[in-house]
Amino acid sequence: MRYKCTCSYDGTLFHGFQTQKKLRTVQSEIEKALLLILNYKTKIYPSGRTDAGVHALGQVFHFDSNLDIKKNNMKNAINSRLPQDIYISDTEVVDKNFHARFSAKSKEYHYFLDFGLYNPLFRHYRYYCRFRNVDYIIFEEALRLFCGQHDFRYFSRSKNMDNTIREIHHISCEKTDKLLKVIITGNGFLHNMVRIIIATALEAARGKITLWDIKVSLSGKTPLKAPKKLPPNGLYLMKINY
Amino acid sequence: MRYKCTCSYDGTLFHGFQTQKKLRTVQSEIEKALLLILNYKTKIYPSGRTDAGVHALGQVFHFDSNLDIKKNNMKNAINSRLPQDIYISDTEVVDKNFHARFSAKSKEYHYFLDFGLYNPLFRHYRYYCRFRNVDYIIFEEALRLFCGQHDFRYFSRSKNMDNTIREIHHISCEKTDKLLKVIITGNGFLHNMVRIIIATALEAARGKITLWDIKVSLSGKTPLKAPKKLPPNGLYLMKINY
Repeated sequence: MRYKCTCSYDGTLFHGFQTQKKLRTVQSEIEKALLLILNYKTKIYPSGRTDAGVHALGQVFHFDSNLDIKKNNMKNAINSRLPQDIYISDTEVVDKNFHARFSAKSKEYHYFLDFGLYNPLFRHYRYYCRFRNVDYIIFEEALRLFCGQHDFRYFSRSKNMDNTIREIHHISCEKTDKLLKVIITGNGFLHNMVRIIIATALEAARGKITLWDIKVSLSGKTPLKAPKKLPPNGLYLMKINY
Repeated sequence: MRYKCTCSYDGTLFHGFQTQKKLRTVQSEIEKALLLILNYKTKIYPSGRTDAGVHALGQVFHFDSNLDIKKNNMKNAINSRLPQDIYISDTEVVDKNFHARFSAKSKEYHYFLDFGLYNPLFRHYRYYCRFRNVDYIIFEEALRLFCGQHDFRYFSRSKNMDNTIREIHHISCEKTDKLLKVIITGNGFLHNMVRIIIATALEAARGKITLWDIKVSLSGKTPLKAPKKLPPNGLYLMKINY
């Protein structure tokens, strides 16, 4: 039996998704819970990793088991053995051909930037941006440049540079008062790509680089002078589309 | 000079507001910051204490100092020495007659109850209620009973029972989808009073007690059979009116 699970987690207290020796990660906590239920070591396969501090509301993973446990029972069984900062919102039995990573058609991320007064209650959940000279029109224009298929080699910290072509299907920005939400959907993302894209748009919106600089860099020819990335606490993995 | 400060804090990692030996509290963190600025021990006086886990977006305290530091400089000086889960949103120099506690005319609290799917990102910021048999009409009716001046001796865990008469000026409830927000304003609150009032209304809404039980108990004659209180993580001290 192959089980597909959708889960949420608060990334604050995790060293990212992937198992690391002696560090608390989402994967190791979930695999610990599964060991308690299934009585043997089970590896889970996520749609992709997330970094330390990054949150998820719609992460997906799969695992195989000989046990045939009913949908809701499996969900409750896992949740009752998980720490409070991870929650399985859905489980279902899927075809053996389903793979959380390779079957994914696209992923949706949200990023929250707050230009208002610091609120300690949101400190782990938004990026408090202290820049006051941000041109939102240019910010949106810069974001739009990333839409479509590009070579994102200069917008990533990936070590593996074999295939750096990705397609962004949708990128938009919603502003309510001082809070900015960036919505980005694409067929795949390189390491740190979302946080670098938004940091780059912010640099343009502050007049530190031009839209032309971004275009040149997106063509894969010249890297940006000082590629930055935004902190992880504003980033949410929202949905995996299959 | 007497300084009046308005502050926000995330109550999650504090053992309440008031200084306690060897425990991390809001008061001790603020007094530590003031010691660094003023170079002598300074005691702060809040509008009232909050319990461990309770949040504040508009707590007020005052302190005295010989130093004449300009409004915004004082605010920035304190904030730069505070941990990330406390933030001073405003400071002002006030008359010597002002007292954060005794000058307060009323206080406003909010409480968030979530009847929806558990979201690990809000685990410290809302009470996830697992009861599904809640009658919201009765919940609101029960809340309304508390409005006005009453003897709240049976709705508190205060040790000092000298004066248990308090007046609630306003109590209401806003519901959006599965999230319930209770707004309560009064001239003062006994220890745990807000959390016991809402827990009691919830008991009525679940058919565990009647509205009549509440009325009798509010008259100060008979305690409720099993007075409960809701957890601290849904409670926010929003505003002190002077």
